[in-house]
Amino acid sequence: MTDYASSVRTLYWEDGGLMLLDQRQLPHQVEYVRCVAVEQVVAAIETMVVRGAPAIGIAAAYGIVLAVGSAFEKHGSRWPQHVDPQIDALEKSRPTAVNLRWAIDAMRKHFPAPAGDPRPTLLDVAERLHREDVAANRAIGEHGAIYLEANAQVLTHCNAGALATAGYGTALGVVRSAWRLGNIQRVYATETRPWLQGARLTTWELQQDGIPVTLIADSAAAQLMHGGGINCVITGADRIAANGDVANKIGTYTLALCARAHGVRFMVAAPLSTIDQTAPNGAAIPIEQRPAEELLSYQGHKTAPLGVPAYNPVFDVTPAALIDTLVTEVGALDGPDFASIAGLFKT
Amino acid sequence: MTDYASSVRTLYWEDGGLMLLDQRQLPHQVEYVRCVAVEQVVAAIETMVVRGAPAIGIAAAYGIVLAVGSAFEKHGSRWPQHVDPQIDALEKSRPTAVNLRWAIDAMRKHFPAPAGDPRPTLLDVAERLHREDVAANRAIGEHGAIYLEANAQVLTHCNAGALATAGYGTALGVVRSAWRLGNIQRVYATETRPWLQGARLTTWELQQDGIPVTLIADSAAAQLMHGGGINCVITGADRIAANGDVANKIGTYTLALCARAHGVRFMVAAPLSTIDQTAPNGAAIPIEQRPAEELLSYQGHKTAPLGVPAYNPVFDVTPAALIDTLVTEVGALDGPDFASIAGLFKT
Repeated sequence: MTDYASSVRTLYWEDGGLMLLDQRQLPHQVEYVRCVAVEQVVAAIETMVVRGAPAIGIAAAYGIVLAVGSAFEKHGSRWPQHVDPQIDALEKSRPTAVNLRWAIDAMRKHFPAPAGDPRPTLLDVAERLHREDVAANRAIGEHGAIYLEANAQVLTHCNAGALATAGYGTALGVVRSAWRLGNIQRVYATETRPWLQGARLTTWELQQDGIPVTLIADSAAAQLMHGGGINCVITGADRIAANGDVANKIGTYTLALCARAHGVRFMVAAPLSTIDQTAPNGAAIPIEQRPAEELLSYQGHKTAPLGVPAYNPVFDVTPAALIDTLVTEVGALDGPDFASIAGLFKT
Repeated sequence: MTDYASSVRTLYWEDGGLMLLDQRQLPHQVEYVRCVAVEQVVAAIETMVVRGAPAIGIAAAYGIVLAVGSAFEKHGSRWPQHVDPQIDALEKSRPTAVNLRWAIDAMRKHFPAPAGDPRPTLLDVAERLHREDVAANRAIGEHGAIYLEANAQVLTHCNAGALATAGYGTALGVVRSAWRLGNIQRVYATETRPWLQGARLTTWELQQDGIPVTLIADSAAAQLMHGGGINCVITGADRIAANGDVANKIGTYTLALCARAHGVRFMVAAPLSTIDQTAPNGAAIPIEQRPAEELLSYQGHKTAPLGVPAYNPVFDVTPAALIDTLVTEVGALDGPDFASIAGLFKT
């Protein structure tokens, strides 16, 4: 039994299939999408049934169980010759989050000998990765919560919660741990245009756990900081370069600039699986562009006039120099840089 | 015949009534609301049928014509004893834009002797204020366009265009003048949550005039600046304090911080009627809070879960120190401050 560590169950394996909480339907409906083929997992990641860098990493791990299982059923011991295209498709399903590649590498390391049924071994590995992500988030929560004093008001962006991970959350893991210590007065959630992860997911997730949350427009954050209303900004990450530059949801860079201008601590909370030591800096991280339509309409209602183009990068890069604290499962770094980040992997 | 100076006719007087382009319906429908009583003008300002500091100033001027006309019809020469409550309601219909008070003061100065029909005189004054606002915008455009070189890419926030003024626009007046000089490559419009003035109004207005415009999420501005895509940020203003602090649409302060961090010129374009010399600094400017519902739903679709509160300040204050250039109809100031702003009124 996996410890989901919050009221929210984002994804789980059941009876030979991967169950994904459909995040497109939240907060209005709590529905699960069942994936019994790897192609369904790829589609679920592409269409954001499941989103959040750690969560899509774990979903991909289960996707490999499905891909290998299908290849084994069709091709027996020749299954290793038939899984690469599906694994490639998994890796390419979203370009920015490095956790996809991390999960795939972790699964490949444990590919069993081709002779027997590979499924039990690989399912064990995927479930271990799943449990380890929850445990990492709990550790992140503990390391990060130390930075929050009584009556802390925290601003978070997008959703880096249980819904973005295997459970508990990264940024919201820090919030959960601090809440248990009695130190959270209120969380401010940016609505996070265009996909409204903050308005739809973060508010819902915190509401499930009874943590006070107030929604603001993305562009109201600086005014709130100016008024002294925020003690700490905490976000997750989709990929962290070797030098500490952080790719995360569009708008994170803006919040980091605003936090620095107001002397507010800017904290990034992410597991080691989010750190890409092959990317020397943020410029090496691919930034996903999503369809203009995400900006041009809402729930079938056009917002802008026909014929107007939109530019819709869904991630940006925050330079390491703007990150006051990077919290991982092995500890927190103040002023992360190349050397201190490399050191995290030696502990 | 008023020179509207753009393809867009925001408001006009016709057959004893004020016609207001219903900005709630744009860009989907071009419909006018006809106001024949001052109460209708108050309601139209409150509900944002008409919005934009200069536009609501001119609407209020016509509203006074209606208020005085009605009082004269009912009370004859005793009309001056019966108009104050309506004029107060006009002044209180939106708290941040000072142009309301400015227009009311300008009209009061010309209140005719109580004996005769006051309407012809006051309509003349309102129409003069209307023409003067258009002329001011044209002058703002000329003074501001000098700062834009060939192939300029401009970022603007909210709508400070013909739709926000009596015609031509302030920020978009600068864009229109620079476009005529052949110096605009593209305008980036922030969508401007929660009311989507950028997505709904600025894109539509620029499209009418054939000026290339691309929509972005509010939170994508910093990434665009970082990539070198923006030469100048231009916004309007709802109220400018004596020291140069600027109250404008929520998010303006954020954009000013981002522009400064990237060495991008931050320009505010506004007529003198927007400068409130009685407000020593931004802290003296009232900031309107609008209903949480503007953030919690869109076109009848709930976005956030039931029971989640929202904080919805619709203006913020940008300190004068972040404003590189203030453009008014009497000229542009680089690094505006108390002394240089006071000097504008002596020219």
